[in-house]
Amino acid sequence: MSRWRRLPEEARDLLDFGKMGGLVPVVTQEVHTGEVLMVAFLDPEAWELSLATGYAHYYSRTRRRIWKKGETSGHVQRIVEVRIDCDNDAVLFLVEQEGGTACHTGRRSCFYRTLTPQGLTEEEARLPWRGVSPKDRP
Amino acid sequence: MSRWRRLPEEARDLLDFGKMGGLVPVVTQEVHTGEVLMVAFLDPEAWELSLATGYAHYYSRTRRRIWKKGETSGHVQRIVEVRIDCDNDAVLFLVEQEGGTACHTGRRSCFYRTLTPQGLTEEEARLPWRGVSPKDRP
Repeated sequence: MSRWRRLPEEARDLLDFGKMGGLVPVVTQEVHTGEVLMVAFLDPEAWELSLATGYAHYYSRTRRRIWKKGETSGHVQRIVEVRIDCDNDAVLFLVEQEGGTACHTGRRSCFYRTLTPQGLTEEEARLPWRGVSPKDRP
Repeated sequence: MSRWRRLPEEARDLLDFGKMGGLVPVVTQEVHTGEVLMVAFLDPEAWELSLATGYAHYYSRTRRRIWKKGETSGHVQRIVEVRIDCDNDAVLFLVEQEGGTACHTGRRSCFYRTLTPQGLTEEEARLPWRGVSPKDRP
């Protein structure tokens, strides 16, 4: 059962979808590790579905349709917290990532590459604070 | 001196600006605390300026111009790491936030509000892993 299922209408209607042709960017961050997993977009329906179900739904600009993250892979994202920015035009989902894998390439995060002075590499991110997911604890 | 000043051209030219009318979304995360500070957009010039100077530059959709973050407030963002997502259409800046304040409202992060079942509140984010910035250490 989603915590936000009975959210008052004025809170649902906060987001400024007009600024970008009906879409709002959303950042998804793993709540246990702090890792930024991906950036995607919400349209009003994906926003409603995310709040109603408690699982991240996005709007795919390429496929031009709503998708539930993990609908085929099983790697769903359970939303623990929903934050909204100062201008009401961006959203932050803090999630538990099922399977530990957000990226379609099989990596934990879509941001698995870093720009070094020589070019792109797959170094781990410098996250001095990086937490450990409860599932990965010894 | 920016680490990325002499980055090979093929690495600079990676980003897919065509997908969204010349813009790419960028997430900015505090490298010491792991907090997501803001979401903004890059155009090719803001991208080049960020790499050339090592300080975050963004494209303002409202003002239709490039801005250096902190140009008036002094709250600049020194880029520690630049990460690119699997589709080359989103960027993650890991930064040191000067002054500890990214939001124009004076808060640390633009995502200072959370959606509870009753509506928006200013609760601190649930970040079990949240690190402490060296400047805030006792």
